[in-house]
Amino acid sequence: MNATAGLIIGNEVLSAKVTDLNGPHLIARLREHGAKLLSLQVVPDDVDAIVEALTLARRRARFVITSGGVGPTHDDVTVRAVALALGRRVVRLPEMVELLRRAHEDKPLPDAALRMADAPEGSELIAVGDTRFPVLACAGVFMLPGVPQYFRAQLEAVLPRIPAQPVTLKVLYVALGEPELAKVLDAIALSMPHVAIGSYPVFERDAGYRVKLTVEHRDAHAVEAVLDALKASLPASSIVREG
Amino acid sequence: MNATAGLIIGNEVLSAKVTDLNGPHLIARLREHGAKLLSLQVVPDDVDAIVEALTLARRRARFVITSGGVGPTHDDVTVRAVALALGRRVVRLPEMVELLRRAHEDKPLPDAALRMADAPEGSELIAVGDTRFPVLACAGVFMLPGVPQYFRAQLEAVLPRIPAQPVTLKVLYVALGEPELAKVLDAIALSMPHVAIGSYPVFERDAGYRVKLTVEHRDAHAVEAVLDALKASLPASSIVREG
Repeated sequence: MNATAGLIIGNEVLSAKVTDLNGPHLIARLREHGAKLLSLQVVPDDVDAIVEALTLARRRARFVITSGGVGPTHDDVTVRAVALALGRRVVRLPEMVELLRRAHEDKPLPDAALRMADAPEGSELIAVGDTRFPVLACAGVFMLPGVPQYFRAQLEAVLPRIPAQPVTLKVLYVALGEPELAKVLDAIALSMPHVAIGSYPVFERDAGYRVKLTVEHRDAHAVEAVLDALKASLPASSIVREG
Repeated sequence: MNATAGLIIGNEVLSAKVTDLNGPHLIARLREHGAKLLSLQVVPDDVDAIVEALTLARRRARFVITSGGVGPTHDDVTVRAVALALGRRVVRLPEMVELLRRAHEDKPLPDAALRMADAPEGSELIAVGDTRFPVLACAGVFMLPGVPQYFRAQLEAVLPRIPAQPVTLKVLYVALGEPELAKVLDAIALSMPHVAIGSYPVFERDAGYRVKLTVEHRDAHAVEAVLDALKASLPASSIVREG
């Protein structure tokens, strides 16, 4: 089970102050990378809420990518929550203290700034290209910052750690409605339950088709078998095109 | 506890085939309505995943709005999952059977179409303006369709059922970094823990400020008290503007 879950942490997203860019970016990049995203949760800056969401995510996903809550202020509770969810203590990482001191250069470093060197015990730091701060990773949880430019940069350093399992996707556009298709889809989905078959109706009259069927699996042969079964079971005149 | 949670159901979103429009729309409309959104989860078309997500959401939220998985095909499992999570049987609603028959007019109604009349026992149908299909609601769970145009129409019929609790939001833009602000924020957040104080750094050099502080609560007096405390605790020169 090599799948990934995403966890966007931020009151500002839930209260519509900020439009979340990191969730959509994560979805797109994981797909391009060929990794499966199992779920995406948006939760507030609240330790209990994060612990619960992370526990749920880790029940199914080997990797969890979080966004936000890693700064030095009172509303940055991600590290504490991840440590709780993993059953680990929070420790201060000397390597991060050193990086923070260097980042502050000539200015004195406020005590609070050192909070950004705190991490769940056993964390690893993953270097990020030419940027100053590494990704904080612990037991398959990657704790990324919420600021989109940094989230994006750090995500590129995380992706190589996630095994790619590219899928084959075939699409069939049909001129029947879902009620008319349901029986055929039932039978095929039941006979090949490992292959994901999606059914997406459109209601615009000028779409040229009524339902978009997607067939998807890591095994291209299985996808072809389902596609063949669909084409054999549906009236030829109902198939608008393949994609 | 009158808060709401959102649940977007759809493999197509998680696999980047479709950009989710319903989540952002739900966030925006709940905020305009004055209702609190506690969490937003995107999960696959999978009964177990939906049951788990719904159970988690209902632990904190009185209302849950779901999007997707309410059609007649094999991948439409929302009703079954909601019934399971609520511990209710699935029953066929005569009123929905009648609506479906009318919607199909002259054409014969396929058996599979009647699946859209299935609902958790004790469900209520909420009329939606001038559209044909009502919202399916059960025990605070509103099961909306995933097609954005219908999701939006049905959401407008749901909002009046969710008590509005408008909040007061004040914003302070400051020229200090988060490390320098953290101690002041700690103290004020600790003394008035019921008021939500958000701290959002920007890293663009031409922003004219370094951190945006948000202060938010239903009680406008509490918001003013925190704002006053912030202004009294921070150097006057660091306050760029209020918003």
